[in-house]
Amino acid sequence: MASGRQRVVVLGGGFGGVFTAKHLKRVADGKLEILLISRHNFFVFQPLLPEIAGGSINPGDGVVPLRRFLPGIEVMVAEVREIDLRSKNVQVSLGSDTGLEPVPFDQLVIALGQVVDLSRTPGLADRAFVIKDVMDAFQIRNHVLGCLERADAASDPARKQALLTFVVIGGGFTGVETVGEVHELIRKSLRYYPRIRRGDVRTILIQHGPRILPELPERLATYAADNLRRRGIEIQLETGVKAATAFAVETDRGPPIEAETIIAAIGNAPSPLLKSLPLELEHGRIGVDRAMRVRGHDDVWALGDAAHIPLGDPAAGDVAYAPPIAQFAVREAKVLARNVVATLEGREPEAFAYHSLGTLAALGGRRGVAELLGLRISGFPAWVAWRLFYLGLLPGLATRLRVAADWLLDLLVGRSIAELRGTRPSSQPMRFSAGDRVIEPGVAPGGTYVVTSGAFDIRANAPNPSAADGGQDPVSPDRTVGPGDVFGLPLSGEGTSASEWVCASAPSTAYFIDKDDLHRLQMVFALIKRRADDGGSDNSA
Amino acid sequence: MASGRQRVVVLGGGFGGVFTAKHLKRVADGKLEILLISRHNFFVFQPLLPEIAGGSINPGDGVVPLRRFLPGIEVMVAEVREIDLRSKNVQVSLGSDTGLEPVPFDQLVIALGQVVDLSRTPGLADRAFVIKDVMDAFQIRNHVLGCLERADAASDPARKQALLTFVVIGGGFTGVETVGEVHELIRKSLRYYPRIRRGDVRTILIQHGPRILPELPERLATYAADNLRRRGIEIQLETGVKAATAFAVETDRGPPIEAETIIAAIGNAPSPLLKSLPLELEHGRIGVDRAMRVRGHDDVWALGDAAHIPLGDPAAGDVAYAPPIAQFAVREAKVLARNVVATLEGREPEAFAYHSLGTLAALGGRRGVAELLGLRISGFPAWVAWRLFYLGLLPGLATRLRVAADWLLDLLVGRSIAELRGTRPSSQPMRFSAGDRVIEPGVAPGGTYVVTSGAFDIRANAPNPSAADGGQDPVSPDRTVGPGDVFGLPLSGEGTSASEWVCASAPSTAYFIDKDDLHRLQMVFALIKRRADDGGSDNSA
Repeated sequence: MASGRQRVVVLGGGFGGVFTAKHLKRVADGKLEILLISRHNFFVFQPLLPEIAGGSINPGDGVVPLRRFLPGIEVMVAEVREIDLRSKNVQVSLGSDTGLEPVPFDQLVIALGQVVDLSRTPGLADRAFVIKDVMDAFQIRNHVLGCLERADAASDPARKQALLTFVVIGGGFTGVETVGEVHELIRKSLRYYPRIRRGDVRTILIQHGPRILPELPERLATYAADNLRRRGIEIQLETGVKAATAFAVETDRGPPIEAETIIAAIGNAPSPLLKSLPLELEHGRIGVDRAMRVRGHDDVWALGDAAHIPLGDPAAGDVAYAPPIAQFAVREAKVLARNVVATLEGREPEAFAYHSLGTLAALGGRRGVAELLGLRISGFPAWVAWRLFYLGLLPGLATRLRVAADWLLDLLVGRSIAELRGTRPSSQPMRFSAGDRVIEPGVAPGGTYVVTSGAFDIRANAPNPSAADGGQDPVSPDRTVGPGDVFGLPLSGEGTSASEWVCASAPSTAYFIDKDDLHRLQMVFALIKRRADDGGSDNSA
Repeated sequence: MASGRQRVVVLGGGFGGVFTAKHLKRVADGKLEILLISRHNFFVFQPLLPEIAGGSINPGDGVVPLRRFLPGIEVMVAEVREIDLRSKNVQVSLGSDTGLEPVPFDQLVIALGQVVDLSRTPGLADRAFVIKDVMDAFQIRNHVLGCLERADAASDPARKQALLTFVVIGGGFTGVETVGEVHELIRKSLRYYPRIRRGDVRTILIQHGPRILPELPERLATYAADNLRRRGIEIQLETGVKAATAFAVETDRGPPIEAETIIAAIGNAPSPLLKSLPLELEHGRIGVDRAMRVRGHDDVWALGDAAHIPLGDPAAGDVAYAPPIAQFAVREAKVLARNVVATLEGREPEAFAYHSLGTLAALGGRRGVAELLGLRISGFPAWVAWRLFYLGLLPGLATRLRVAADWLLDLLVGRSIAELRGTRPSSQPMRFSAGDRVIEPGVAPGGTYVVTSGAFDIRANAPNPSAADGGQDPVSPDRTVGPGDVFGLPLSGEGTSASEWVCASAPSTAYFIDKDDLHRLQMVFALIKRRADDGGSDNSA
């Protein structure tokens, strides 16, 4: 290894980063030292996530192990914490048990993609599943199957209906594909649940805009919407989500939708790291020139979802930019790799230019829509085109074979309904609307609620039914609890008894501590309380 | 459905329960109402768990969805909480958000299997992975791959060695198969980790008795031990485990073994539910007659690992009992189903009798040992026999095909090294030995430690190296903290600074709160502290 070699550090293990590293290795012919830094040791093939959520692909089969796909390239599994463009250093964290480690670079490629940010909608981040990562998608699959199990056993009709209501927010590619696949998983599983009738299940797609799939021509989007509706999926257009509570999705149209399952396919936002950089952001993405070089930094490059790449000359009034999709990232990577080597050799970099091969969406149920090379197709042929297209785009023979085997088994023997739960306890912040019944006698609370805002009424007798719709109960409660108070299972002696009702009397929040967590933390709580009682005295020997 | 039908409730979704339900349906010919109650909606094929831990089978592929395998049989996913033999009622919990529900029965079949109880060895329950459930096995696979990633990036040699030390406790079938498969996973993955040499990895099997695989003839066990040793696995015989600390396994021989990975394949114990029953337990199992009827209860039956089934006449001095293995449970189920129907029809039940077809163990690396129909085979033929035997025993065509496809892909393209981490935070109780360095400057602590017993020294200067071996540091510490004190990341303002060292000065325990959990719980802690400061006054409105 010649010590004179330049070190290129690539940040991000998505399409942009992985293919940049791959092409750099090929183009540089040993003249560069290449290091890829990724959060995971695998590459997530995002277009397949809805199929993992729908259970037709095993979670481990929709990913590509980086070290295997990138022979000869150094791979580091770490979180990028800081980027210092001046000293040409990146600070990374290798895990919760070690400190930050500096990684120096000569050339830096930023391919950090985007993150999901649901903070603009109250309660959504706490309540919704996202579909960004492979384990997110796998969790959705297991949760959906768990809802079927619990609905089959449920005796209370309202509870059963909430368990059988599945809401997907966002009518773009991911939202449409996810609602289609989840609906398919449910449809194929229902015959094993004798107590659930098909009409009991509601799958709902909520879209803010006037139509779904705005990236596709209207005719195809209409076909897609018709197809989803015909299969029984409700589509609510021009509908905004105001909040998510412990029990429901609140929209700006109609009454709250009581649902156990909320999936958010919205909220793509720039990585918080980008905002910390002394760089000009354009629409939350890093501004680069047509060669994908970050303006004002000769040794820094950016591509993929994190970069705002002009497809023409912005100075000449050209307003076309590369869209944040896989196809483009893969092509950008190829050009960027050549550009890095060209500039190191004193040659001129080339401008990125690419015409999309087309766009495709799978709708589930062996149907799809596609615009390929100007051709618009829909139905079964588009679905086949979708599968072939992504099987071709999927990097690595092993992964391709695994996905093909999953699809074949799905056709031959159907998908599994095994609910593979992890052991994750469900402690989390929760939001309640006024009138929500949180605890009822006869139903053992799953843990302790610590009120963080608002107020809850506690009463020994059933609340007036009209109060459940947010109305005022004429009979005043036995007591009302507020922030800092505790109800449910007792914590430090405080809680509610098994015969009491608890209702939110105003829009309120509480931190729910699952009884398993509670058990584990009980000792810690007791110690902290004792210390506080002692006046925080120092126990030092 | 005739209301006069007897209702048979089967408790447990393992081999015994599932096959009893299946055979009952067949034998009863519609004359019985059959309900199976299981914790999961699938049946775990236990013999394949080591292969899931080794990554050659996908977690979802090694299980059989109950509803699919048991058409016409009612399935309820629930935890059994109470069994009342007098009122003929079982109380079950359907989830943390609902109360107990009564399930009446006419005939009860107890097939609750066994649980893992590691409480006899201090620290082991908190530190060790078990291999009882499919997600346990999947977690082991991911953890092992994560250790390779972190070891590849580690700069501290001692830390690297701990990350590369894998200890399996227990030399029975599960322990031997697990150590063999985990070793194989590591061996096949190493070529992707350029900074780990093969000699850096230690896989250790600890066995209490004088030899491994005591269930097999000595010659086969010797072959197995030789094979494992030749492949580089260390076997420590006649070694007891005294304790597991945050950093090490302490045995009754030699120095503590510093290891990041501890897998316990020991501790099979009766379900706590069995102890609560007014039944006579024999070696922790329910005493039954030769027809598998619980003594003194005409309508209660037991089989599988939960039952102590005589193979001869105990009164005549016969001391043979059915061993707790899959083969026997499957055959017991068949006889038990016939016996339930026979007694309902007024016929005599038959005595259970079965001669084992043999026993097999897979050693990993395409080697095995087997005693089949009196024939002793070892090596590659035994491994093939193992795979065919269990593929044949695996219920359901779909599962059989899935497992066969996984094995085929493993042969064709090798196993994946993708570390599929869940998002489970790692808050947990931890144990330390005297002298353990818990926090060092430059290494950011992963969270907050609340001391629960013992004492920790905090000092601004490095402790004397000899103190690391449990010796006394001649320089006294800056301060010492004890139960109720906090170190690491600050909690309520208390913690240690980034430049301080923390060492256990005696055998100690602490509850570690992961920084992600800490962040989520901070608000709750603050509220509780404030309330304690207010003297616990009632905030009621």
